[in-house]
Amino acid sequence: MAELRREPIARRWVVITKDPARGPSDYVPYKPPYQPQEPKGACPFCPGQEGMTPPEVFSINPERKGWLVRVIPNKFPFFRIEGGFDRRAEGMYDMMEAIGAHEIVVEAPEHDRSLATMEPQQIERILLAYQARVIDLKKDSRLQQILILKNYPGIFNRHPHSHLLAMPILPREIDDEIWGTLDYYKRKERCIYCDIIKEEISMKTRVVLETLHFLVFSPFASRYPFETWIIPKVHSPDFHTVTKEMMSDLSAAIQSLFTCFYKLLADPPYSLAFHTSPLQRRFHRDEYHWHIEVRLRIGLREGFEWATGFFVNPTPPENAAAYLREVE
Amino acid sequence: MAELRREPIARRWVVITKDPARGPSDYVPYKPPYQPQEPKGACPFCPGQEGMTPPEVFSINPERKGWLVRVIPNKFPFFRIEGGFDRRAEGMYDMMEAIGAHEIVVEAPEHDRSLATMEPQQIERILLAYQARVIDLKKDSRLQQILILKNYPGIFNRHPHSHLLAMPILPREIDDEIWGTLDYYKRKERCIYCDIIKEEISMKTRVVLETLHFLVFSPFASRYPFETWIIPKVHSPDFHTVTKEMMSDLSAAIQSLFTCFYKLLADPPYSLAFHTSPLQRRFHRDEYHWHIEVRLRIGLREGFEWATGFFVNPTPPENAAAYLREVE
Repeated sequence: MAELRREPIARRWVVITKDPARGPSDYVPYKPPYQPQEPKGACPFCPGQEGMTPPEVFSINPERKGWLVRVIPNKFPFFRIEGGFDRRAEGMYDMMEAIGAHEIVVEAPEHDRSLATMEPQQIERILLAYQARVIDLKKDSRLQQILILKNYPGIFNRHPHSHLLAMPILPREIDDEIWGTLDYYKRKERCIYCDIIKEEISMKTRVVLETLHFLVFSPFASRYPFETWIIPKVHSPDFHTVTKEMMSDLSAAIQSLFTCFYKLLADPPYSLAFHTSPLQRRFHRDEYHWHIEVRLRIGLREGFEWATGFFVNPTPPENAAAYLREVE
Repeated sequence: MAELRREPIARRWVVITKDPARGPSDYVPYKPPYQPQEPKGACPFCPGQEGMTPPEVFSINPERKGWLVRVIPNKFPFFRIEGGFDRRAEGMYDMMEAIGAHEIVVEAPEHDRSLATMEPQQIERILLAYQARVIDLKKDSRLQQILILKNYPGIFNRHPHSHLLAMPILPREIDDEIWGTLDYYKRKERCIYCDIIKEEISMKTRVVLETLHFLVFSPFASRYPFETWIIPKVHSPDFHTVTKEMMSDLSAAIQSLFTCFYKLLADPPYSLAFHTSPLQRRFHRDEYHWHIEVRLRIGLREGFEWATGFFVNPTPPENAAAYLREVE
């Protein structure tokens, strides 16, 4: 079972995983980060290997001819659904059990697909799977925040998949964004994200593309080269309330953006996260505006970001957006 | 000239460097992060090549027989000393020029040394150079925070060196720590770091080593495998006020710790940062407690930390400290 421990000064929660705890022999010889591996033997995410994974919690399987998207509990979860929080002190410190859910969304039967090479209809199926899982997990009132996260390529398996993490606490990034959103609302009685959308559409320089319902742009203070956000143009706090028609539009936007990355930067590695309002009434905020953040894992990363919590980015977002716009 | 841009929601400052701005061709083909490079041709940090760098701002050169430590302005700085802030709006956004200082401390004449293989006397010279530079830069009242940062191995040059960054704003990590320190002080009228030191010394499980003046330990909510802090046992907000005798003790502590890492983890890559109180009266806090944080750059790093601002660590700090303690 993993533990949630709270750093007592800045009050950051950390997940300490212990099954098994890793020691020196797991780190020697040194491997550079983000060296994707392939599973030894058969891929547990490929059709025909379903017995290698825990039973599925959801799938899209039209006419029972074989699944097109499949959701399974993670065999090596950060958070587990069973048990109680057991909030407690250890000396002056605070900790609790890491209660929650950690599911894997297998995004396609094919082992070698990515968001750049999938049909938009397949991306739409993935989005519908996310939505169905969020609506189901929301019923567990212990779960405060759902994070949908994709790393490409996957670290332990290239088969296209994403993580769905349901957490008992608000992650700091979301907490900070909500704080900023409420503070802005208090001063202006407007959503800061809606204002950013208007500003970016009128300035044009950081816009990558626009669809009927979504804006895709490089934010003004991009932390990473080619950082990109995908945001609904009409105010909405929750990803899981998106209509079927918007979902189809969103999958087209995602497919276009990742095709741009693929062509411009030779199939770069990336991470993608959904930022959406906390689920339960206690923390849910109508003022929040859900969106997707994309970060490419390119360029050197130095200790500066770690040491300071701020970022150095050698690719201005205007340039990034311009490069991306020019992709044929 | 680099720009400081403020992300308007969570209000994070980002340095956008533009000379030159990097485009797609700088990122293709994709290189994994932290692949240290060596300079093409002669090493500008080696003795005899001083003409390749800007003139030194400080050196330790006993009896003029050749320098032992040398401090030079960085040729590719994040922050520059010349000019004004020019704080301004761009539409709804805030920005200013990246005013500050960015110096390189060349830590030894030898090209192939590290903190594990240096004499403690040499580490003491490096610390004295840091101290001298902080005391000098503090005179510029625009500079609010000094960050001393070392990446090992260096990204562009293996020659042992560290960065000294003097910034016009408080980095978020320090700001968060100060906020937490003041909040704790308000409730308890005690320093939270002093309480942590007492707790760790009495619990012993996370202590790596102890010297006359310093405690070296793995913090309770370690964010990274083998994360380690070095902290003075007596309360002090500022690194630059350390006495000569404590400096000698600190260099012994550093040398011991990095020898442990070297032996236990086969010369692992790491980053090291000094957390010290802001310099000028406006932000300086007597309640703060300076310390050094060390992070090893080992193990896989996933998108989770980026997406949430919290961390998953598969090596509990108790285990890390135990492993390190057992190094011969």
